Amino acid sequence: MEIVKGGVTAPLGFSAAGVACGIKKRGKDLALIVSGPPAVAVGTLTVNRMRASSVGWAAEVLRRGRARAIVANSGNANCCTGRRGERDTREMAQLTGRLLGIPAGEVLVGSTGVIGRALPMERVRQGIAEAAQNLIPKGGSLSAAEAIMTTDMRPKELAVRFRAGGALMSVGGIAKGSGMIAPNMATMFGFLSTDARAERPLLRRILKQAVEESFNAITVDGEMSTNDMVLLLANGAAGAPAIRPGTPAARELARAVQTVCRYLAREIVRDGEGVTRLMRVKVSGARTAAEAKQVARQIANSALVKTMVAGRDPNWGRVASAVGASGIPVDPQRLTLRFGSTVVYRRGEPARAPQEILLKEADQPEVQICVELGRGKAQAQMLSGDFTEGYIRINAKYTT
Amino acid sequence: MEIVKGGVTAPLGFSAAGVACGIKKRGKDLALIVSGPPAVAVGTLTVNRMRASSVGWAAEVLRRGRARAIVANSGNANCCTGRRGERDTREMAQLTGRLLGIPAGEVLVGSTGVIGRALPMERVRQGIAEAAQNLIPKGGSLSAAEAIMTTDMRPKELAVRFRAGGALMSVGGIAKGSGMIAPNMATMFGFLSTDARAERPLLRRILKQAVEESFNAITVDGEMSTNDMVLLLANGAAGAPAIRPGTPAARELARAVQTVCRYLAREIVRDGEGVTRLMRVKVSGARTAAEAKQVARQIANSALVKTMVAGRDPNWGRVASAVGASGIPVDPQRLTLRFGSTVVYRRGEPARAPQEILLKEADQPEVQICVELGRGKAQAQMLSGDFTEGYIRINAKYTT
Repeated sequence: MEIVKGGVTAPLGFSAAGVACGIKKRGKDLALIVSGPPAVAVGTLTVNRMRASSVGWAAEVLRRGRARAIVANSGNANCCTGRRGERDTREMAQLTGRLLGIPAGEVLVGSTGVIGRALPMERVRQGIAEAAQNLIPKGGSLSAAEAIMTTDMRPKELAVRFRAGGALMSVGGIAKGSGMIAPNMATMFGFLSTDARAERPLLRRILKQAVEESFNAITVDGEMSTNDMVLLLANGAAGAPAIRPGTPAARELARAVQTVCRYLAREIVRDGEGVTRLMRVKVSGARTAAEAKQVARQIANSALVKTMVAGRDPNWGRVASAVGASGIPVDPQRLTLRFGSTVVYRRGEPARAPQEILLKEADQPEVQICVELGRGKAQAQMLSGDFTEGYIRINAKYTT
Repeated sequence: MEIVKGGVTAPLGFSAAGVACGIKKRGKDLALIVSGPPAVAVGTLTVNRMRASSVGWAAEVLRRGRARAIVANSGNANCCTGRRGERDTREMAQLTGRLLGIPAGEVLVGSTGVIGRALPMERVRQGIAEAAQNLIPKGGSLSAAEAIMTTDMRPKELAVRFRAGGALMSVGGIAKGSGMIAPNMATMFGFLSTDARAERPLLRRILKQAVEESFNAITVDGEMSTNDMVLLLANGAAGAPAIRPGTPAARELARAVQTVCRYLAREIVRDGEGVTRLMRVKVSGARTAAEAKQVARQIANSALVKTMVAGRDPNWGRVASAVGASGIPVDPQRLTLRFGSTVVYRRGEPARAPQEILLKEADQPEVQICVELGRGKAQAQMLSGDFTEGYIRINAKYTT
């Protein structure tokens, strides 16, 4: 497997465009990703109950399982916009379908931005028309990645090429963050493409597993958004036979999807609102993976732990407190805490680690916090960022 | 019922002191509250699994149900300090008991501050001795309130006098915040006293209910600490007969305890780390009170809602998103959202409230966020503060 250029348009048969149509005050705000050949589509959608109409529409498309285009705007989430919002989502799909000569039912729609405002449809229509005219075969990925940005500082894309079943194929993707990022999706888009051919159940399993350990294992601010979606379109344009479950080719495809998802997820945290440094939380010795993730999430979302990381302060008591508050019946007598590889607390007793070593661990660009619960063998990880004045500055002024 | 001076020493038979013994770099850091007559003691303790040794000790004292003193230090939580920490807690109780001529088992101990460091016992011993020598009958409440402060900006105390069963009696209290404040206790002390006489079950019920709607209905940063406790000592020194459950006197006592708890809880939020403005979240139309509280907590702890309040921005979509992320299966078609009395979203549709009215609502010193779920008749409230750069500044530098 090797990293290649082209992002979401690296796989054969994909084209993309990103244009500025005035939904945001400045910058690109409408993205279009198109597969020439019909593609199998799978996805993971937000579980927020106040989901946007675009998410409901995507659920319908994914139920049928075929798609040839993703149209997405930034600057407006088209959420809590009632019947008008549903009409607007449908129109976005219909207009895109008409311009591309494909059924509206094969057009996925994404929206991200402020909630509760009607989409400026005149501008959206212009944007879709312009994007459809400016599609770049095997190009336009970076433009599309720019067009889905909200408070993101930089576009996020990656593609990898791999050999499976004797043929070369690739997986590409673009994503956006950057606040409202927490497990179970976030204000987050991940749009992935591949020219591999595979049936829906296999693709769904591969995507679900990759999302679980990437986009669902990161947090910026503990928020879950109304508009999140990760989508994967597989168009088979590489010309290879369908990849079957349980084969080496299926494992190669899964690895490629994982690689793209992990990279994009990490980029989302790195580019998280106000984030200056990362922290990786590793929880082991849990009874179940869900239990491990619950403890990891409590630490990764703790405002006190996140400000501690911002301050390069090895104040591990805040980690201990978060573990204790996780809702898991942790036994202090079996608990071990580490900063990096340095034990700070072991089985009921503080470890008297030298302060200069702790200060060095707390000064890493990616602080490692390791928790061994002593309850079982399951483990989980979360990637999070620090909590700085930058987050406040960005979010205390967003709509007005 | 009327507000009177004297705080936790307003009820007859109580004395208090607060001294500086060098646990903190500066300021008072050791508090002592004493009841002359033996008192019935009830309390609510943190449910954090990593609780401090003082919490374990308090649980033992409360199990027996009698206490005559509370000794509490700030600047060090004596938590995650292993066997040494347990010995130190016991020694604090024993020394206090010896100096006051009461059994160690009637001395409650509280500690708050940094986690994972051993108590400087030489200083603690000096502090206890000095406090015991400087007890002020019917005074010293403010000193004690100062001595339990950590990052609090000001001491918190209140007392009320009321007539019950033909006699005048009072309830007083002191409290400290001010970060790590979330439901189910926080880094929070609430020490209450009364000269009413009542049996343990009634006192326990009264305190539990008051705590539920005061200290457990506030949040500053969603954190639950290892050291929280609310304690109530009732010494009967007013000379009135025991208050019986179900009587008007019991209701008067409950009202007085509620009043003191609510005031202290509100003061904790007002004085919360970095807090400049309050928000009150009212959730109604839930199936159960627990459900209502879960939704209220999700909103009150949302970093995006809290930064919105900081920015005086009526961006109600963030409230909608928090409602949807609460885990309660909310139906948007039955949901109504209000800023103050202004409807912003009603049953699936945005309400087009005039922006100038919303700006005015968002500019209140206490922003009102009202959510009607349309699922039932239960309700709950949470009081929270905004999220500002001040919180980051305080917490990115705490131990080092």
